[in-house]
Amino acid sequence: MYLFHQQVRVCYADTDQMGYVYYGNYARFYEIARVEALRNLGFSYKELELSGIMMPVYDLQVRYLQPARYDDLLTIHVKVKEIPKLKMIFEYEIYNEANLLLNTGSTTLVFIKMSNNRPCMIPDELAKKLKTHFE
Amino acid sequence: MYLFHQQVRVCYADTDQMGYVYYGNYARFYEIARVEALRNLGFSYKELELSGIMMPVYDLQVRYLQPARYDDLLTIHVKVKEIPKLKMIFEYEIYNEANLLLNTGSTTLVFIKMSNNRPCMIPDELAKKLKTHFE
Amino acid sequence: MYLFHQQVRVCYADTDQMGYVYYGNYARFYEIARVEALRNLGFSYKELELSGIMMPVYDLQVRYLQPARYDDLLTIHVKVKEIPKLKMIFEYEIYNEANLLLNTGSTTLVFIKMSNNRPCMIPDELAKKLKTHFE
Amino acid sequence: MYLFHQQVRVCYADTDQMGYVYYGNYARFYEIARVEALRNLGFSYKELELSGIMMPVYDLQVRYLQPARYDDLLTIHVKVKEIPKLKMIFEYEIYNEANLLLNTGSTTLVFIKMSNNRPCMIPDELAKKLKTHFE
Repeated sequence: MYLFHQQVRVCYADTDQMGYVYYGNYARFYEIARVEALRNLGFSYKELELSGIMMPVYDLQVRYLQPARYDDLLTIHVKVKEIPKLKMIFEYEIYNEANLLLNTGSTTLVFIKMSNNRPCMIPDELAKKLKTHFE
Repeated sequence: MYLFHQQVRVCYADTDQMGYVYYGNYARFYEIARVEALRNLGFSYKELELSGIMMPVYDLQVRYLQPARYDDLLTIHVKVKEIPKLKMIFEYEIYNEANLLLNTGSTTLVFIKMSNNRPCMIPDELAKKLKTHFE
Repeated sequence: MYLFHQQVRVCYADTDQMGYVYYGNYARFYEIARVEALRNLGFSYKELELSGIMMPVYDLQVRYLQPARYDDLLTIHVKVKEIPKLKMIFEYEIYNEANLLLNTGSTTLVFIKMSNNRPCMIPDELAKKLKTHFE
Repeated sequence: MYLFHQQVRVCYADTDQMGYVYYGNYARFYEIARVEALRNLGFSYKELELSGIMMPVYDLQVRYLQPARYDDLLTIHVKVKEIPKLKMIFEYEIYNEANLLLNTGSTTLVFIKMSNNRPCMIPDELAKKLKTHFE
């Protein structure tokens, strides 16, 4: 299993008039967390796209347990539980500074070869880097 | 069952560098669709909040089948399948102008009394207005 | 002078915890207004890009006089005061339903030929369509 | 003069289909930079609001010189050139990793007493903390 933690500070732009983070903005937090999780593996999502493969999101699930609020310093736990073949599942838990679990979610991403816009297998390099966390 | 259709035009702000609508921005489309669905019942979400009840989102699910693209005129189908008690479930389908199904999703919202921040039952007025669609 | 009016409904996603529209979100309103102003001329920004010319924003100015609030139905007045050559200036005024002026602003956009990423002149078709409003 | 530097990583959510950061999203970068500039002074914007004073933006100006792109690690230079009385002006310059100047801008914020929604003077504590940088 590959685990990674990423901190994000809630800014005013993230909030809505309830004083909460707008429910659509967690998708951004998840994106930041998973891209940094990949970078921490030594893998750059930007370079993946430059190499001709992109990873659009196929499925998003979010459960809002407690609201995140302005200026909260959030810790996002990212989990990859299995080595992907055609799709990659990231699971998330978001905690505030009091270590209260605010939010859980998951995203399923697929690998798409940009030249023909068709699904493809996980790039070898990414699979290899992930494997070191599954031994 | 209550059904409603809402059109939304994709703007540049909605897109990302894949040329797709960013996956987090569908939450905004869903919000617009469900608020207009309520308005079409003769029910104002704004006035609900002014009366002391708010409806935060508890659960979001999105399935991305095909990308929505810049300048697409989307039609969002909103469905309420049962008369809510403590929580209200909206289901969504998004179609483009070629009538291709791009996206399906759902949101579960709860009723919260703002004075004590606790769950409450659906307001009578909303239940009554919905009922006319379930007979 | 070319004048156009566009209505926009403020949604929850637009607000922040002050209960106002977040100051960065007016840029989106301006974009919607100017693209619809072009469409009303019979000119599609999307097709412009497909033809190989894009119009990135070079300058943005916003003056926030009164806050726009959740569920406000805003009317955006867009003005083009002169026929552009290398850059196109749009001026905006945003009014609420009580006809109170909330916000004024302007954007300067340039024409860029995408094949060489260099500035170019306004497309003839757009100039011609604008001219009918300057006679 | 008070100077502060803040780094921000461009994420996918920030980009648009030109492959650039959407022009409205710089407002968010500016917000992050000025709030962290205040925090670095030992001053919390969140606590300011809790004490009954808010700082809405009155004026925004942005000049887009070069596009910021996906995954760029931006450095935002924030400058406060004079000790505010009724309004506080922040100036910004954004550089990419190659130290290329991408963007310049400014925001003017006012101090508003939330109890009566009227302008007020800069809080003493903030003025005092700023002064140490003007000697």
